[in-house]
Amino acid sequence: MRPLLTVFEKSPDGGQGHARDMRVRWALEEVGQDYDIRTVSFQEMKEPSHRRLQPFGQIPTLETGTVSLFETGAILLHIASEHAGLLPEDDRARAKALSWFFAALNTIEPPIVEREAAGYTVRDRPWFGELLVLLDEKVDLRLRDLSDALAGRDWLCGHFSLADIMMVTVLRRLEGSSLIEKHASLCAYMERGKSRPAYQRAFDAQHALYRAR
Amino acid sequence: MRPLLTVFEKSPDGGQGHARDMRVRWALEEVGQDYDIRTVSFQEMKEPSHRRLQPFGQIPTLETGTVSLFETGAILLHIASEHAGLLPEDDRARAKALSWFFAALNTIEPPIVEREAAGYTVRDRPWFGELLVLLDEKVDLRLRDLSDALAGRDWLCGHFSLADIMMVTVLRRLEGSSLIEKHASLCAYMERGKSRPAYQRAFDAQHALYRAR
Repeated sequence: MRPLLTVFEKSPDGGQGHARDMRVRWALEEVGQDYDIRTVSFQEMKEPSHRRLQPFGQIPTLETGTVSLFETGAILLHIASEHAGLLPEDDRARAKALSWFFAALNTIEPPIVEREAAGYTVRDRPWFGELLVLLDEKVDLRLRDLSDALAGRDWLCGHFSLADIMMVTVLRRLEGSSLIEKHASLCAYMERGKSRPAYQRAFDAQHALYRAR
Repeated sequence: MRPLLTVFEKSPDGGQGHARDMRVRWALEEVGQDYDIRTVSFQEMKEPSHRRLQPFGQIPTLETGTVSLFETGAILLHIASEHAGLLPEDDRARAKALSWFFAALNTIEPPIVEREAAGYTVRDRPWFGELLVLLDEKVDLRLRDLSDALAGRDWLCGHFSLADIMMVTVLRRLEGSSLIEKHASLCAYMERGKSRPAYQRAFDAQHALYRAR
């Protein structure tokens, strides 16, 4: 069977491709692996049948006929283990790419998600502005280090890798904010990712689903 | 060479083993791999020589003579790839264990770290209590799902795996808080992890370093 990916029935971001299935679509497109999708409503996500695939009631999940995965980190790693091209063959370069892959998930993404979530949950509180200053500082600290590490390089590890799929999709959550716009090198890095044909096919596929609803 | 692990020169938690090198020590002890440590001061962590190993100026890092890694996710995955026993051989079980491994890092740990950080950064603000209620809710949401998923099981994936090393060390950050204490099954799970001889050797090693300073 072709891999089966679960995605939101209704895109919460109006088809901008910020949902986490975008990472999986992009990785699958990079290796030329066709896939099917199954849409899941917000209600269905919380039901036992979906929680058997995803214990936290979220998307995406990937079923391949052999294995069933949740968490985009696990899914992308699985795709890279089944197809050449997303991780370097050389041990040293591979270790570096995996380090950056996890940095995107565990060092860069959490403060970005934290800041974004505050915009939904406490925007109406009188102290929101005061909190936002602190959340912005946390994100900025990480972006400055990331920008330094990327200096003079097109991709995190020389060649394009799984780490770049994860990092670019994480950074895209900041698109349009002054936090990222003050780092020209990070914006250029994002654009390099977004200009890859595989990214564009993935983006178009999720966008077409949004428009069809 | 034996793997070389960087750790805090001075334990910020008084040797309680919450620093992230504890995960790496535990994994190395589980597979019986001896290792050396190099202590790094808070100042040294931010210097270029350390940032070449860890771009965000943090610990731990692991150098093996062949590869150099940062991020505990990447380090633990590397250890599991070099030694049998931390991940199932069977594809299906392995995919499940990796999914849980990433869930510990990307779904469970971020709200716990967010809550902990607020205790340092905004404890003196008049709105701290109001914020803490929301942060507690975020953590509790995850713990309830985790507790449901663990029901009737000793470990996340049947047998002890890399996912349990990551999850137990993540949950330990909540030790002593009512958030975790109301979930008896999660406390029992933590204790199962902590009672493993490899955990105890790892804990004792980091504690001895703290006492020696």
